[in-house]
Amino acid sequence: MTSQTADHTDIRATNLAAVLGYLRRQAPCSRAAIASGTGLNKATVTSIVADLLDRRLVRETRQTQHHVGRPATLLVLDGSAYAAIGLEVSARGLTALAYDTAGGQVLRWHRAGPGAGAGPAKTVAAVAALARRAISTVQTSGRRVLGITVGVPGLVNRDGSVVLAAGLGWRDVPLRTDLTAALGRPDIPVTVDNDASLAVLAEHLYGPLAGSENLIHLAGDTGVGAGIIVDGRPLRGHLGYIGEIGHLRVVADGPLCGCGRRGCLEALAGLPAILSRVDGLTDPDPQIQLEHLIRRADDGEAAVTKVLAEAGTHLGHGIAALVNVLNPEYVVLGGAYALLAAHLSSAVTKALHESAIAPQAGACTVVASTFPDTATPLGATARALTSLTTGHLPSPG
Amino acid sequence: MTSQTADHTDIRATNLAAVLGYLRRQAPCSRAAIASGTGLNKATVTSIVADLLDRRLVRETRQTQHHVGRPATLLVLDGSAYAAIGLEVSARGLTALAYDTAGGQVLRWHRAGPGAGAGPAKTVAAVAALARRAISTVQTSGRRVLGITVGVPGLVNRDGSVVLAAGLGWRDVPLRTDLTAALGRPDIPVTVDNDASLAVLAEHLYGPLAGSENLIHLAGDTGVGAGIIVDGRPLRGHLGYIGEIGHLRVVADGPLCGCGRRGCLEALAGLPAILSRVDGLTDPDPQIQLEHLIRRADDGEAAVTKVLAEAGTHLGHGIAALVNVLNPEYVVLGGAYALLAAHLSSAVTKALHESAIAPQAGACTVVASTFPDTATPLGATARALTSLTTGHLPSPG
Repeated sequence: MTSQTADHTDIRATNLAAVLGYLRRQAPCSRAAIASGTGLNKATVTSIVADLLDRRLVRETRQTQHHVGRPATLLVLDGSAYAAIGLEVSARGLTALAYDTAGGQVLRWHRAGPGAGAGPAKTVAAVAALARRAISTVQTSGRRVLGITVGVPGLVNRDGSVVLAAGLGWRDVPLRTDLTAALGRPDIPVTVDNDASLAVLAEHLYGPLAGSENLIHLAGDTGVGAGIIVDGRPLRGHLGYIGEIGHLRVVADGPLCGCGRRGCLEALAGLPAILSRVDGLTDPDPQIQLEHLIRRADDGEAAVTKVLAEAGTHLGHGIAALVNVLNPEYVVLGGAYALLAAHLSSAVTKALHESAIAPQAGACTVVASTFPDTATPLGATARALTSLTTGHLPSPG
Repeated sequence: MTSQTADHTDIRATNLAAVLGYLRRQAPCSRAAIASGTGLNKATVTSIVADLLDRRLVRETRQTQHHVGRPATLLVLDGSAYAAIGLEVSARGLTALAYDTAGGQVLRWHRAGPGAGAGPAKTVAAVAALARRAISTVQTSGRRVLGITVGVPGLVNRDGSVVLAAGLGWRDVPLRTDLTAALGRPDIPVTVDNDASLAVLAEHLYGPLAGSENLIHLAGDTGVGAGIIVDGRPLRGHLGYIGEIGHLRVVADGPLCGCGRRGCLEALAGLPAILSRVDGLTDPDPQIQLEHLIRRADDGEAAVTKVLAEAGTHLGHGIAALVNVLNPEYVVLGGAYALLAAHLSSAVTKALHESAIAPQAGACTVVASTFPDTATPLGATARALTSLTTGHLPSPG
């Protein structure tokens, strides 16, 4: 059923990716351990490691193993030469992260956004300013920027244009092109992707559920969107528009949604909808509003916990639709939902079990993300490193 | 991101699958054409072809190419040695198909089912009887049965047990075990799978949309279920429960569904729901009822076309949920929906475009299946041949 055959360049990249992947999970380790762990022969491993040492993606440590026989020099990932930058645009503000190739954090910033209704031009300018500062900080650390990826809450096409982001009020914003122009750095590849698709990548690679092959990340900071891993692979779809569960109609003639329809899940259970339903959240910054909301919910204020339980019920029905169609092992509540999980979970789980067709909701567990503030930019750094992690080395120099 | 490395047994199977795949699409062709078409070297192709000739999966033809130079002997698939059997259990009855390994049809039968509410034991006995006759017919043709796959409208776990088939009234039926026991043929592997997952495989491999990587097959003969191909791969999920869109709640407090809930898509737009809403369909066989329904719809009977338009609207809303989450290139209306497509399509498309969030429903086209009666058993024969098509040859003798 495949028309692919084994090609030598592919094999080299596959094997290189396997060695890097093994090092990411197991370092420090010896060349012999890599060979036995990956099934590659020692000569291949030696040759690949030489390339990696040459590019400063791997380094040797003085530490040696104390087995019987000759001590082996151990290898670890080297993060001193390269880093990747991940950015997130959300109703909660702008976030920037940079990680080096050894998994070390180079920077982590949060900025208030230019405000709801500021329009895409202002936001693109703010993102570009943040990206420029991040590039400069990475370079000051002595590293080269391998790529920048930006996560946006909306439909992003394969050209990196935002076709529609109802929660931001964006339509047809050529973000990748605009950002590339604003940065004036043609040597740094810029990619733009859906926020949820990046967030689920972070869960899949770095979270406590990294072993799971069937994982959905659901967040509602701006719109409500799902990032989806099925059978170990992130879904992409025909044009890249995956996981738009926010526009499932859960209530007939419900409240108006940013998309122009009524009763959509995100008009009932998105963070902006939740915030708008709680009295007394007056700060202009949604992030501050969220912090107040959490404090009042944790204090047990009945009006607040009622709003959250209602949102949780709608969310549970929406999750049931995803569970019926995709049979995930885990649904990860991300972003603000993770911070509010204590007040959402029981309503979510109850509604999910009522609405899912499979017994025990197909053995699905709903959990809170361990990256409530950074899943999207963290996934974005991983995405910016895709060519490296699939075994394609950066050009030297 | 991968821990796989290139292993020699895997490479052999991958290359064998590539050669068989090339032959399936391009035969008759020469060894040289296979080598250039697959990128394999000639010695590898010669060795693989020798194995395939030995197993009678390929044969040489006397026909030769008339290029300049030495004429090359051409190869074609050989269907004389092996066949696979596909069965479908549906509210419309039982269907059996057998195809040989060259794609030749060995048999195609339809039988009325044992009737709604007959209970699983009676149906399993009927399926076993049909399977036994199919085995005998295949053997009489001189072929060995490589496998039997049965498609069932419900949740099928990895052991081949039907956990729930609301439309048949089944719960926890160990169909694979029961059928294997009833056949008494431990040499023939039996698999059981969800009907829609098999049907989409047929579309993906043999239908006019076979080139598409993002394809959903939606049928409602018994329940309403979707078989889903995303990014070129059939989805399986954590326990194998994929595509259960039939239990999406589309109407609050709607009609009672076989699952015990109200307002599910299948209680509004499944074939049994449609048939129950049309007066005068009195034949006890649902297949005959369907034929009468089609005739009356084609004659333009207003009461009938109104019921179908209503069902089409509900179906369109359900398809929109799939389109929002999975961004398919095509949604294929299968089974009875294909036969009724002329009366469903405009309502389906209208509701889809109203409910989908992406512009132009994410470039999704809704089409009628070209296999309205056989998509599931056809996909089942393909599934029964999985080990062969992934490059694992049957044991000789």
